[in-house]
Amino acid sequence: MAALGKARFLLQHKCSVYKLSGCRYFSVQSVRHSESKSPVGFIGLGNMGGPMAKNLIKNGYSVTVFDVSEQSKEDLRKAGANVVSSPAAVASEVDTIVTMLPSNPHVIEVYTGKSGILSTVKPGSLLIDSSTIDPMVSIDMAEQCSKKNATFMDAPVSGGVLAAASGALTFMVGGPASEFPAAKIILENMGKNVIHCGGVGTGEAAKVCNNMMLAISMIGASETMNMGIKLGLEPKVLKDVLCTSSARCWSLDTYNPVPGVLEGVPSSKDYQGGFATELMDLGLAQNVATTLKSPTPLGSLAHQIYRVMCNKGYARKDFSSAYMFLQDEKEEK
Amino acid sequence: MAALGKARFLLQHKCSVYKLSGCRYFSVQSVRHSESKSPVGFIGLGNMGGPMAKNLIKNGYSVTVFDVSEQSKEDLRKAGANVVSSPAAVASEVDTIVTMLPSNPHVIEVYTGKSGILSTVKPGSLLIDSSTIDPMVSIDMAEQCSKKNATFMDAPVSGGVLAAASGALTFMVGGPASEFPAAKIILENMGKNVIHCGGVGTGEAAKVCNNMMLAISMIGASETMNMGIKLGLEPKVLKDVLCTSSARCWSLDTYNPVPGVLEGVPSSKDYQGGFATELMDLGLAQNVATTLKSPTPLGSLAHQIYRVMCNKGYARKDFSSAYMFLQDEKEEK
Amino acid sequence: MAALGKARFLLQHKCSVYKLSGCRYFSVQSVRHSESKSPVGFIGLGNMGGPMAKNLIKNGYSVTVFDVSEQSKEDLRKAGANVVSSPAAVASEVDTIVTMLPSNPHVIEVYTGKSGILSTVKPGSLLIDSSTIDPMVSIDMAEQCSKKNATFMDAPVSGGVLAAASGALTFMVGGPASEFPAAKIILENMGKNVIHCGGVGTGEAAKVCNNMMLAISMIGASETMNMGIKLGLEPKVLKDVLCTSSARCWSLDTYNPVPGVLEGVPSSKDYQGGFATELMDLGLAQNVATTLKSPTPLGSLAHQIYRVMCNKGYARKDFSSAYMFLQDEKEEK
Amino acid sequence: MAALGKARFLLQHKCSVYKLSGCRYFSVQSVRHSESKSPVGFIGLGNMGGPMAKNLIKNGYSVTVFDVSEQSKEDLRKAGANVVSSPAAVASEVDTIVTMLPSNPHVIEVYTGKSGILSTVKPGSLLIDSSTIDPMVSIDMAEQCSKKNATFMDAPVSGGVLAAASGALTFMVGGPASEFPAAKIILENMGKNVIHCGGVGTGEAAKVCNNMMLAISMIGASETMNMGIKLGLEPKVLKDVLCTSSARCWSLDTYNPVPGVLEGVPSSKDYQGGFATELMDLGLAQNVATTLKSPTPLGSLAHQIYRVMCNKGYARKDFSSAYMFLQDEKEEK
Repeated sequence: MAALGKARFLLQHKCSVYKLSGCRYFSVQSVRHSESKSPVGFIGLGNMGGPMAKNLIKNGYSVTVFDVSEQSKEDLRKAGANVVSSPAAVASEVDTIVTMLPSNPHVIEVYTGKSGILSTVKPGSLLIDSSTIDPMVSIDMAEQCSKKNATFMDAPVSGGVLAAASGALTFMVGGPASEFPAAKIILENMGKNVIHCGGVGTGEAAKVCNNMMLAISMIGASETMNMGIKLGLEPKVLKDVLCTSSARCWSLDTYNPVPGVLEGVPSSKDYQGGFATELMDLGLAQNVATTLKSPTPLGSLAHQIYRVMCNKGYARKDFSSAYMFLQDEKEEK
Repeated sequence: MAALGKARFLLQHKCSVYKLSGCRYFSVQSVRHSESKSPVGFIGLGNMGGPMAKNLIKNGYSVTVFDVSEQSKEDLRKAGANVVSSPAAVASEVDTIVTMLPSNPHVIEVYTGKSGILSTVKPGSLLIDSSTIDPMVSIDMAEQCSKKNATFMDAPVSGGVLAAASGALTFMVGGPASEFPAAKIILENMGKNVIHCGGVGTGEAAKVCNNMMLAISMIGASETMNMGIKLGLEPKVLKDVLCTSSARCWSLDTYNPVPGVLEGVPSSKDYQGGFATELMDLGLAQNVATTLKSPTPLGSLAHQIYRVMCNKGYARKDFSSAYMFLQDEKEEK
Repeated sequence: MAALGKARFLLQHKCSVYKLSGCRYFSVQSVRHSESKSPVGFIGLGNMGGPMAKNLIKNGYSVTVFDVSEQSKEDLRKAGANVVSSPAAVASEVDTIVTMLPSNPHVIEVYTGKSGILSTVKPGSLLIDSSTIDPMVSIDMAEQCSKKNATFMDAPVSGGVLAAASGALTFMVGGPASEFPAAKIILENMGKNVIHCGGVGTGEAAKVCNNMMLAISMIGASETMNMGIKLGLEPKVLKDVLCTSSARCWSLDTYNPVPGVLEGVPSSKDYQGGFATELMDLGLAQNVATTLKSPTPLGSLAHQIYRVMCNKGYARKDFSSAYMFLQDEKEEK
Repeated sequence: MAALGKARFLLQHKCSVYKLSGCRYFSVQSVRHSESKSPVGFIGLGNMGGPMAKNLIKNGYSVTVFDVSEQSKEDLRKAGANVVSSPAAVASEVDTIVTMLPSNPHVIEVYTGKSGILSTVKPGSLLIDSSTIDPMVSIDMAEQCSKKNATFMDAPVSGGVLAAASGALTFMVGGPASEFPAAKIILENMGKNVIHCGGVGTGEAAKVCNNMMLAISMIGASETMNMGIKLGLEPKVLKDVLCTSSARCWSLDTYNPVPGVLEGVPSSKDYQGGFATELMDLGLAQNVATTLKSPTPLGSLAHQIYRVMCNKGYARKDFSSAYMFLQDEKEEK
């Protein structure tokens, strides 16, 4: 795990590492299977990774999987996957691997741990990490993979559990342009948009940016709808006016936080079944902004509001419950 | 000045006045000219009102105008308008009047002043105010017009000087549903969207909501683009990724604050020619929110940021210069 | 209601009224009783006003009182006061009156209403308003009193119910320097500090400033103590370190928000018995700041946090319950 | 540097490490010189460390020093210090060492680098770090020192360059109670307050808390004074009123940000000679708060405001220039 600290140290002292990262991996030789539908490894079979791996199987891939949960492995076995006992075991069998893990330390462990991918990885392998993590960790992982002559790409997703199941995810991919086509062939089996954002780390960077902006616009939409309704506007009328005007945003037109304004969205289902407030990890964005000394006044405040919401019982509710949080509840504590 | 307190008192104790306002004016008898293209009055011929009045003339209306500026009046005279010497003079000649004024006190003066509209207004007149003002003042004006058997509607606009010139404004209209069709006929000559928002005051309410949300999303977009670029993302790529994802908003896809990302927008023209920061009047939203005790954490912070920007030399720049404000300038004070 | 706009218009265009106000009343002739212990009127006998009036009686004054509550009047009658039926009745009997009322409209009504003070006020009277209200309303009241040849002074208090009872209030007084000694003689019977802040309105201005700063430091103290305790610091040790360093403030050393750190304060009594969150009226400060275009980023955010706290069940708790609000409660909504 | 990552990992997964840290080092055997005035090492001879080391010399200590700057070393040599070539060389000569370094990576390098302290440290040594760093790094350093049978204590300071020169610093000390007396004997030569805060890391924790609260109160004081002055209050009167009331704080009564209110403070010297805005490192507090998931809404906003100030030319000015930042400058960008 030493490299994590090193990445941070480097970052503080030579932040330009980001700008350089785009061109560092072009020399990695690709010796992977080039015929289509070559076997793929998948590590991390949770709410997101499970359905993603199944989509690969549905699309005709032979998939070798690992997870720490017995149930998750059993579930994939039934779906036709080849289950093995460690990340190292996956890497010794296949040369294209997708990882989908909860956070920084899990990624570091799966790649650089004792029975991690890098302990057995084949030269020329393509390693695609779809976890949402710190871009600095992605850059660090890429460096370590590079030493083993393997290519690491970060490819976090936009879209939740339903999009994972239906293969409708958007992938934001960072890594060498020369390797992007190979990554895209795999990722297209699990998503409908696969976007190359630049050098390694830029996929995570784009994800971090998206999440911060999303949090700002969702809380902003909640404040605005709440105030407008208190001013006597009918909620649907207010939504329509705002969405034909300069206030238009995804949080208003596609995921409106006011119950009953849109059908099928979490706000119309008691804020269930969406993207939980506790997963709205703006800590990543704040760490990045602090390290880069980049001012993010609204992003920081949004982070704080979601932090308080987690403390006040909204952790498991959809993040559009910011609207509910702003309501007057009146009951005495 | 006792009435000041009274207005506030009423507001604090019977805020439901808003909710009721929709139905108070249905009994006003409409005795206006019903044939099309009846003469129209226009008061307030500035950057917005001037082009709007001209569009009425272009569309075949006979227009009687007033403004305090001699030059504005002369300009309209050349365009074919009938220029008179006071709001009262306008109201004594025509029974349909549009007003477009800078702020609360101007509206109050034009309607209730010594030579104001209400001093000569004909029973049954339709008075449409397109100024951006406090919804509470609109409600008050409507009450006073009602005593003269005239109908007041608030119809603030979205879209700037260019939209005013090209007749592409959006009107957000508050007032009795029974009078909306008559107002719409007039307003369609100056805009392409005319939306009925509800009872009197709701047009202004929608405008206030739109402006608050716009300010939040513009500053949010500025923070996000700034951080992403510092993280090594190419600006246009970042814009594209965000706009195909849940961060999508008008401030990113139509009016992006980063120079060079979109053509023709103020950010690509040194933040000139758009909507000045000093006109981003979030004070209206904050006054309303404070009165209603409606929490608006991000809206309040956006208000404060634009306040500081006005103090620091950005008052005349386009409001997307929030991006520039967040930049590192380094020079010592 | 036209005057509403007029007041706002005046304010926006001649804000210097504040600066001028100090010198406008020097010419008022003082013809009041000059012997000590002349009779005093007291209007507004609530939690604060009741004990204040009683202190005047205890100190040997003959006190004539009015309140809308029968019980409050009865309570004062037992304490020895002369109870009359209206503000006008008070003003017709005595020429020195103290008012202690809940908010702007109450003050306006008591002074300028049909049976208000000004309907019967004697020339040369001294009218001292200890209510916490908008400084603009104070200035307006002073103008109206001036027309009746009476002097109005604003004298809001710092210190709560206990300080009112024990005569330990601080009075922040605005009004003509020439009248300050007369006001001070009266106020010293109810408080231990009587400070002349400047012209009329400056007492309220100082109060508004104090409340904003207090809210900022209380929430700041709550955040800081909470973070420090989570970092492993013992609460009392943390308090001691902070109070011997540059973080020192009243909210930490005198009214610490963490239960058990100080004895006798509301935080150590389940946040009961102090100054209720719902009375923490930062709306006054925000209205003033918005009118003056004075940036108050932390003040605005503190306002918003107390607004949300009121909505979430903390309205009746002491305002130091901000500490409790920031805690992790975990239970699901 | 691996342990840094480990500390963070642990922190995220078992935050109770903090609570435990107080008792982990009691078993370390102390075999240091116990006679007074035993030789002391000092590493880091900058604006703070230089004067501190000189105070040890003045008080009769034999001091062995190291710094990367030749000039700093030469300066101390003239003052009577024994200059050596590396941290390792210091540790091989003396068993009591004080370190005063700029930030996390410097501390990590000086302790755990190739020619770092731990490469030669004697068993039983007392290592006191007065740098302002992340408490997690302190805990990690303590663990590594423990493996060498040495005691690490964190002892960051409050008070700036002048206090360092005059020996008037306050030390906030974290580490085993059994070792505190030995540390105190050394530190008392450089400061007038030496406070034991608890287990290792709690000194840094207290410092982080103090800085966050200080930033909040300084910006709050700046907002409040600015608004009050705009409301017509004379600055010194306003300061006096606030300081006798519940708004009282160090930023108002000792370090007032308004020029001319207090003599001798930076605000009265064009914001020169104090504590530079760029050194107001609230990033530490924000990283800690994010890791602990502790809400700090005002602390975060204060961080953002100082971030923007650094970008806008206030980096080298005293941190009380927040008052100046809020002023209306009007000149066009």
